[in-house]
Amino acid sequence: MTIKYPNRKNNILKNNEFISKSGNTYSNRGMSLEEDLNATNTYYLANNIANIHKKPTPVQIVKVDYPKRSAAVIREAYFKQASTTDYNGIYKGKYIDFEAKETNNKTSFPLQNFHLHQIQHMENVMIHGGISFVIIKFSLYNEIYFMKASDILTFWQRQQQGGRKSISIEECRQFGTLLKTSYPIIVPYLNCIDELY
Amino acid sequence: MTIKYPNRKNNILKNNEFISKSGNTYSNRGMSLEEDLNATNTYYLANNIANIHKKPTPVQIVKVDYPKRSAAVIREAYFKQASTTDYNGIYKGKYIDFEAKETNNKTSFPLQNFHLHQIQHMENVMIHGGISFVIIKFSLYNEIYFMKASDILTFWQRQQQGGRKSISIEECRQFGTLLKTSYPIIVPYLNCIDELY
Repeated sequence: MTIKYPNRKNNILKNNEFISKSGNTYSNRGMSLEEDLNATNTYYLANNIANIHKKPTPVQIVKVDYPKRSAAVIREAYFKQASTTDYNGIYKGKYIDFEAKETNNKTSFPLQNFHLHQIQHMENVMIHGGISFVIIKFSLYNEIYFMKASDILTFWQRQQQGGRKSISIEECRQFGTLLKTSYPIIVPYLNCIDELY
Repeated sequence: MTIKYPNRKNNILKNNEFISKSGNTYSNRGMSLEEDLNATNTYYLANNIANIHKKPTPVQIVKVDYPKRSAAVIREAYFKQASTTDYNGIYKGKYIDFEAKETNNKTSFPLQNFHLHQIQHMENVMIHGGISFVIIKFSLYNEIYFMKASDILTFWQRQQQGGRKSISIEECRQFGTLLKTSYPIIVPYLNCIDELY
């Protein structure tokens, strides 16, 4: 399955991040959540705290050129929809699995940011005894929340039953845990695991 | 870091598998190990036995076209070296992490199939309490072995100390566990985990 990105026509790719022509990243504030999480995971790995990685972006490769004396070049490929969440790994012997999303919305996090099979994957990880959660960033406020997958499932089910199609920022504050950014551990999400599980 | 594939000039990509111009896959026998493992993991997932996935091939995306009314097309990208192993997930609450390799060699499995950071990753997974192993297929004999990462590390260290640069097939038979292919669980590697851990 390929994905259309109709709103990204005016943007270019740089270091695997989408950058708008004005030069701003989508987060509009400094580093993206993905970059902050990658830096956090690098720190966790280097300091023997955890081994957690972002999975590569899934791509369907169609055509590859093999120029003489240089690297193979992919000349035609398409973005595929991920069948799982983006991050997984191990912490204190436990399987860790999560998705990270940021929104420019002011008052809520739209549930359409998730695909059905991502929700199913989170539920499945819980069934198998893993730790599954979501990191949500409200970019305008620079507020980052840790929310357990069990809560995400509750909000998803509410939507399935005709309820609101988003999680309000108040609900994030009530059911999630605010992650205070710091240095060198930029997004210290493992603290929440120590507290919540 | 990009990787050169000098020996694949005469090959084309089909369904993400490299196929030689003669039409044979590299395994030269039926399905590739990767396809067999994907089918196995699909079965494990669908039957609530485990949740284990192959990570997407890491690709550095350089140029993307956004044609009107159709999917974004990646027009320039390069293969990157994976920083971890290819497969990971959860089984009975345990973190599972492995690499799968096949060789057309008759008498041994060359250690150059691994990169240093993959070896380091396996060691790191063990330190964090995960289950780390390698699945090695000798395609000519259709023999598939499960070998614990601790054994792979021993052979790697032997090489570092000036010893042989491969694991002989006799060593695979002695230290590994033969995985008998079956149906519908093609490569029933979780049986080894039940037995060995």
